[in-house]
Order: sequence, then C-alpha cells, then structure tokens
Amino acid sequence: MNNLKPVTQLRPRLMSMFAIENLPDFTPGMDLSAEIIAALDAQGESLQAFDILVIAHKAVSKCEGAVYQLEEIEPSSEAIKLAQAVNKDPRKVEVILRQSRRIVRHIKRPNQDEGIIIAEHKLGFICANAAVDESNADKPGQLITLPDDPDQSAQRLCSALETHYQVELGMVISDTFGRPWRMGQTNVAIGVANVPAIKSLFGEQDAWGRPLKVTAPAFADELAAASGLLMDKEAKCPVMVFRGLSWTRQHSHISQLIRPKQEDLFR
Amino acid sequence: MNNLKPVTQLRPRLMSMFAIENLPDFTPGMDLSAEIIAALDAQGESLQAFDILVIAHKAVSKCEGAVYQLEEIEPSSEAIKLAQAVNKDPRKVEVILRQSRRIVRHIKRPNQDEGIIIAEHKLGFICANAAVDESNADKPGQLITLPDDPDQSAQRLCSALETHYQVELGMVISDTFGRPWRMGQTNVAIGVANVPAIKSLFGEQDAWGRPLKVTAPAFADELAAASGLLMDKEAKCPVMVFRGLSWTRQHSHISQLIRPKQEDLFR
Repeated sequence: MNNLKPVTQLRPRLMSMFAIENLPDFTPGMDLSAEIIAALDAQGESLQAFDILVIAHKAVSKCEGAVYQLEEIEPSSEAIKLAQAVNKDPRKVEVILRQSRRIVRHIKRPNQDEGIIIAEHKLGFICANAAVDESNADKPGQLITLPDDPDQSAQRLCSALETHYQVELGMVISDTFGRPWRMGQTNVAIGVANVPAIKSLFGEQDAWGRPLKVTAPAFADELAAASGLLMDKEAKCPVMVFRGLSWTRQHSHISQLIRPKQEDLFR
Repeated sequence: MNNLKPVTQLRPRLMSMFAIENLPDFTPGMDLSAEIIAALDAQGESLQAFDILVIAHKAVSKCEGAVYQLEEIEPSSEAIKLAQAVNKDPRKVEVILRQSRRIVRHIKRPNQDEGIIIAEHKLGFICANAAVDESNADKPGQLITLPDDPDQSAQRLCSALETHYQVELGMVISDTFGRPWRMGQTNVAIGVANVPAIKSLFGEQDAWGRPLKVTAPAFADELAAASGLLMDKEAKCPVMVFRGLSWTRQHSHISQLIRPKQEDLFR
C-alpha cells in the first residue's frame, strides 16, 4: 500500500474541460487554427502546456472542403441498387460507397422509412453510412465526409496551435457513432495527434500487484466521448479543451484504434 | 443565428472532474456512501447540487458481496465443456454462465493461451466473460461480478449522499468493456440514478434548423468513458465527481442503453 502513494500523488486527479465559444460557421478554405486562436482570444483564454483539443470532424471537414453537393453526384448502378434496397437517395449512397471499403450490413425493416447502411470506411472505421452526414451541413443537398487523412489534419492543426502558443498540445478529431448492442451515440476518435490513441497498461500491475494483462484504455476515445458532455450539436461548439490530464507525447495513429479484421468476432 | 445565442448562454460550457482520493479497500458489508463522505471530508471537499458521481462497479460489488471464491464453485458439465474449448478455469466459466443469459461467441485461437467468451449478461450487457473479473479482486481465486441490480445500487447510494449533502445528485456505476471493431477499452455505464441514460435530442434542431432525427447522446456512457481519463486501475480511484454539467433529473434505467435484440445487426 504505502509504496503506491508517491505514484498516486504524481498523477493529476483533477481535470477540466471547456468549450471554445463563438466559433464561426466554417466553409471551405477557412483557417481553422486561426479561427480557434481568435475565438480563444475573444474568450480571454489561451492554451497551456499539455492541453488537449477535441474537435468535431465537421469543422475540419468543412474547412478542408470534404463536402459533396448532391446535385453533382452521378450514382453508379451499384449505388442505385443499394439505394433501392434501403430507400435512400442514390446519390447519397454513391458518396457512401466512395467513402467505403465495403458494406458490412444493410437493412430496411418494414417499419422504417429509410434503412440502415453499416459500412467499413476506407480508413477502417465501421459505422453508419461510412460517416457521410447531412446533419450540420450548410444547406440541404450537402453531404459532409470525414477528412481525407484525419491524423494529418490533426497534426497540422496541432502544430499550428503549438507554434502560436509555444506549448506542447495534443489533439483528437471526433465523430459521433452509434454502437452495436448499446443504444444512443457517443463521440469516438477518428484522428489523433501527439496523444496516445491507446494507453497501454500491459506490464503494469493492478493495485494488488497482479499484472493487468489486457487493460488498454482507449484514451483518444475516452477524450472524444467526454467531449460530447458539452458538445451539443445545436450549440455550434465543435472544439473542446481538456486541461489537467497526464499524458506522454508520442507519434500515434488512428489505425491503432482499429481492430484487425482477423481479430474481430463481429463483422 | 441570433436566436440561438440565448440558448448557448444558458448551457454551461465548462465542467470539471476530480477523483475522490484515499478511499479504502472495500470489503463485503462496508458502507460505500459513508466511505465516500469520509474521504471527501478528508479531502476538504463536499458535493454540490447537480454533481454526478461515476463509481467503478467493483467498489459497489465488493461492498455488496458480489464476489465468488473459486474454491467454492462446483462447475456444471456445460461449464466444463466450454472451459475446455477456451482453456479457462471451469469454475470461472461456471460463474460466467450463472451471470449470463447466453453465450454470444466463444473462440480460442491457436496463438492464444486463454480464449475469449463474449456473453449476454442477464442484465442485457454484451461483454467479455459476462463482466466476471479477477482483476482487482482482493486475492487470487476471487471473482467479482456486477452488482445484482446496479440501478438499485446507484439509487440507494445516490439517495444516501443526497440526504447527507442535502443537494440533488446523479450517479453512474461503470465497468470497463472492450468493443467490437475498435481496439482498447472504455468505461461504460452499467447502472444509473437520476441522470438520463440517453439525452434524447429527437425533435430538436441542428444549428441550421433541420431536425436532428437520430441524435441521442448516450449521456451515461459519455460520463463513464470520461471517468476513465483519471480512473487508472492501479491507483485505486474508483469514484469520480463531475461538476458543472447541465442535466435534468429523471427516473432512468440502464435498460434504456440496451439495444433490443430485434434491432441489433451484430449479435
């Protein structure tokens, strides 16, 4: 027992999370890091060493122009066929297929107006509609996809903020996913910079000295899920700042959060 | 746009989370709420209106005596058979079966010493080993299960703390689950009191005035996942206090987080 005390005291046991207020509506070409700095300035805030930012991907996607206009999409015959099966707009299904490696499940139940497509996104995420979303698009007929390379987006944004504030920072880009088995949605990580995707506790011991064989907290997903506590969709607060957490800077990749297909019992 | 401003300002955009330090090792019969009060007192803290506590279930389970001794377990023939298939202790498998409605998957790969059992817990959770756990048991040969009725446990503990502090509180009891498709674990809710399990945004609108058809943040799971940011297993900090969140008191049930089997594409 006594030898645990110093460890406990080294670890911070208090964190705070706040929203960056009054960010603008984002449009293609906007400089997201400059907008974050301006909004923090207006809020009388700055970033401190080891702050972590969680950013809803839509802000990133819009600035990067990861946006499709429905009227510009020519659906393939595959998209038309799948669209009929689930009663979705074939142009939307075309974008879903372009964002996907493969369709994992699709179903339309008799009581559903529109069915469900669960896809494996080309980055490896398994989620509804390959993360293609109409919600919070700037206008009807607009579809938002994930950024092309969310890790690179996170790294770029994080570096710009680190340069401005001259402190080490971490970043997670998030999306809102449903889950098998459980109702409701949570935010999950779809891109990371500097923070561990997973905090591996392999080799460490539990409080009673036994090895913690399989404990590997999905740190980036914990951050993303926590961001949802203040990130109500209707309130336009896509950026949360976490302060007070203990973490070790590292080169991490969102692919570390993707379960390899051969180890997955549920796809 | 302008009509959104008052709504934004009504919602809190800052929260904090802290750990209750120096809680004792819990054993059957201990009064968990009294221990929480004593630890908060020692910390110079009290609870404030609308604080939410997230408690790792093991603290609750141990106090309630939801603990098995391996040497007292007589495995059934079904347990012996399944234990052979996955190379687990048949007495542990017996406890898993007693905690389960059914086994969803079981597998032992050639490179695994011990295989995997994914079970549907009798409360509806789908998780490894029906949430039966050796980690953080008080001694080898001890197995900890979920509390018998986690919602009731949460309600009882929450009421005791509300009576002491004379404020309205919320509570989530958590466990650590793996997920399909994604690596690493997150904490999820397995019991709730007073706080919404899911914050339904049906009928609300996104920032551009379109209905948010299917947005239903799993509030209790967001809280549980966030608790993992400070709840390192080796540090014996099973209770986190969230302060500053906006939520509406309600009668909630953990069953609201269980996806009905007929709506689930992945079991």
